[in-house]
Amino acid sequence: MDGGVRAQGYSPRTFRALTFHDATARFRDGADTPRAYLERCLETIAAREPVVKAWVVLNEAGARAAADASTARWRQGRPLSPIDGMPIGIKDLLETKDMPTQMGAEAYRGNFPKRDNAAVWALRQAGAVILGKTVTAELGGAHPGPTTNPFDPARTPGGSSSGSAAAVAARMVPAAIGSQVGGSIIRPAAYCGNVALKPTQGGINRGERQATSMSTHGPHAGCIEDMWQVAIEIARRVGGDRGAPGLFGPDHPPAAARPERLIVMETEGWAALDAATRSAFETLLERLRGAGITLLRRADHPLIEAFEQSIADARAICGAITAWENRWAARNLVDQHPDGVSERYKAVLASAERMTPEDYRLRLLRREEAQRRHAAIAPLADAVVALACPGPAPPWSGDVPGQPLAPRPTGDFVFNAPSSLLFAPAVTVPLMAVGGMPVGVQVMGQPHTDARATALARWLLENVAPVEA
Amino acid sequence: MDGGVRAQGYSPRTFRALTFHDATARFRDGADTPRAYLERCLETIAAREPVVKAWVVLNEAGARAAADASTARWRQGRPLSPIDGMPIGIKDLLETKDMPTQMGAEAYRGNFPKRDNAAVWALRQAGAVILGKTVTAELGGAHPGPTTNPFDPARTPGGSSSGSAAAVAARMVPAAIGSQVGGSIIRPAAYCGNVALKPTQGGINRGERQATSMSTHGPHAGCIEDMWQVAIEIARRVGGDRGAPGLFGPDHPPAAARPERLIVMETEGWAALDAATRSAFETLLERLRGAGITLLRRADHPLIEAFEQSIADARAICGAITAWENRWAARNLVDQHPDGVSERYKAVLASAERMTPEDYRLRLLRREEAQRRHAAIAPLADAVVALACPGPAPPWSGDVPGQPLAPRPTGDFVFNAPSSLLFAPAVTVPLMAVGGMPVGVQVMGQPHTDARATALARWLLENVAPVEA
Repeated sequence: MDGGVRAQGYSPRTFRALTFHDATARFRDGADTPRAYLERCLETIAAREPVVKAWVVLNEAGARAAADASTARWRQGRPLSPIDGMPIGIKDLLETKDMPTQMGAEAYRGNFPKRDNAAVWALRQAGAVILGKTVTAELGGAHPGPTTNPFDPARTPGGSSSGSAAAVAARMVPAAIGSQVGGSIIRPAAYCGNVALKPTQGGINRGERQATSMSTHGPHAGCIEDMWQVAIEIARRVGGDRGAPGLFGPDHPPAAARPERLIVMETEGWAALDAATRSAFETLLERLRGAGITLLRRADHPLIEAFEQSIADARAICGAITAWENRWAARNLVDQHPDGVSERYKAVLASAERMTPEDYRLRLLRREEAQRRHAAIAPLADAVVALACPGPAPPWSGDVPGQPLAPRPTGDFVFNAPSSLLFAPAVTVPLMAVGGMPVGVQVMGQPHTDARATALARWLLENVAPVEA
Repeated sequence: MDGGVRAQGYSPRTFRALTFHDATARFRDGADTPRAYLERCLETIAAREPVVKAWVVLNEAGARAAADASTARWRQGRPLSPIDGMPIGIKDLLETKDMPTQMGAEAYRGNFPKRDNAAVWALRQAGAVILGKTVTAELGGAHPGPTTNPFDPARTPGGSSSGSAAAVAARMVPAAIGSQVGGSIIRPAAYCGNVALKPTQGGINRGERQATSMSTHGPHAGCIEDMWQVAIEIARRVGGDRGAPGLFGPDHPPAAARPERLIVMETEGWAALDAATRSAFETLLERLRGAGITLLRRADHPLIEAFEQSIADARAICGAITAWENRWAARNLVDQHPDGVSERYKAVLASAERMTPEDYRLRLLRREEAQRRHAAIAPLADAVVALACPGPAPPWSGDVPGQPLAPRPTGDFVFNAPSSLLFAPAVTVPLMAVGGMPVGVQVMGQPHTDARATALARWLLENVAPVEA
């Protein structure tokens, strides 16, 4: 009810996301086809896109051709993979050979390099239907695109993977590829009621998008099964980033695994939580205890307290590292296109240009320290559990001319900076609603335990009653 | 005398490389100027470029303007750095805002992105005169460009930093930027009598050139002083690669440091050495012993033997890792420009497309194992010493139509793959001549000991009589 706008009443109990894994049996027997599945997606897009604005461009003809080819493969009993025929959206930071890649930036308007990002190449090899490019906040940063939250058009869908999260939430596609540097997968997914995986750093080959030392590609989906299948089909074909072993895990979605013990991560966001979100999360924690799960918090163990301290300014460390790493690309871009980027973008560049190599080294040391402290708590519990966003998506109606720029128009990444900083896998699941809007809960594992984090998150999703406040 | 071509009689005793550090005192008192220094370089280029073919493009007007500005700064006693006014060549893999970047590939003919690579940006900030782009083997690989060895035009200058090495050897410039994935800095430098640094992996910010997990930028120069100064002026301004702390070391060239003990690294190249090179290197080792330095070889310690075993197929591991990492960029390029790359390039892509993610993971494990074994020998000696190339530069007169492609037209990287694989700094110094051609000797240190490796190499250069065979 924030901002006087009536929310459309999201409830994790009643909302049914679009899923794919449970559709393929009917592709085999001919009761349904990938082409028909695609057409249903296109109908949903036609109905909802005018308000949601999740897409930059759709390749309907290419998608129909791909869906027809998939239909033939399923009919012949020879699908290329379990996601053969899955319509999927690609965040507009990733290059696609058949669509422009404009990255949410005026400077890249019309940019059309006609190349496939490694992950996109892998999806095509797996038979997925590359339906279109989803809106990204400008260059993966904080300056928002036009996308609205499917559960309340007056609110942000989160960012920077705004269109990917919204397209899944609006049931336009069963899955979409996002990417995260600070909180750009998990936060929009959490604001939009998605399931999503931010993999271990390097887990999924970023191809040409290897700009920073802590960015990852990851899937948004309507369910755990599709989320995992998309991730592993990519990783099986193109592996991880250069120098990284890539995503580890089974070829099919991990079964649910009940946690024995979880560490509750508060982050620096804890103190600033609104009362309803905090209360709802505490209720959720009560339900976990009720299910026999032991919860450990910062007061319960000095190593957990030490860990929390090491991530207490994770946002600032993430921000500085990323700004520095983008500095020269950003300077070239601004020099070439002075009017082609936002004032927000220029402000980040200015902050980077005030840094020295020593400033950067110090941030890297802080990151390593946090990673060591995270490793130190591994023996204490199965994983970490935390809010995936600091409450429901905030209202957003655009910057006000003459006023200072809103600091975080796509929401606050305070609950997301830790997994980025720690190179840790995080899975968000829609286990809460506050004021009729989704609020995600995340499970964060140690690096390379993506499959285990997925199994634990799946258990929570399937066994814990969601909380509505 | 190989191939019946008369060498021009390179001798490390008599050859005087072009240097810069010792010219700047005269810039201060007005007896010389950066503009006059540049004009001398341009005269040398005019005289030698028709045969050497080191340059893809020169920006004479821009260089003269930059040299004039530098002249004014020195006159005012306010140089931007010790390399203010230094004419420098940039390998044509690195973007430069005022010159095309064509990467030795037909597919990139005319490519002119008008951006500065981070290292180029840093050099401009330090006042260096960006004179032109130097020839690279196609896309940094093995397919050679037109450059010839300045000491014998019938021979390769080495590659892929062919033009950078040759421009320094021909006294056209005091320094040039190269880059290495397998052996692309150290080998051409060694074939051309340069001093050169292949830094610790991540030591110098590669900017947009971060395609692979073991490539580095590094300086070729006529002397240790200029080599170090170029490297540190870049690193002071732009640091290292994303996620890396960057080059460590002093703001001025390290003083020579006498090694107490050195490990002699043989590599898989040892057995295949020609008799003259092997004999010359053994003579050099005798001189080191004569200077009181203890030498340890694989038979002397089981850890050294274990280390040698771990790098025994360093070439193959390097090659496979790099081919895999370039796979998707290469596939996109070939799809877009089927006639725009060489058959050599396509053969490497084909080898990558036969690999799986598991093949890649296994190579990464082999790399990590080699790195651990290298770390294990650190306590045994100050550093490693080895040949920097397997004898003098081989003759090269082009592929023969109808014949299989020559496997390594720019020479064999068998002595260079280890430092790439180990992420280790390597400094080559011109301490040998075989058959009237330069043969480099390298000092390799543990990661992040670039300054120490430089100090040790400097000691060898200043205190050990070169060997001619």
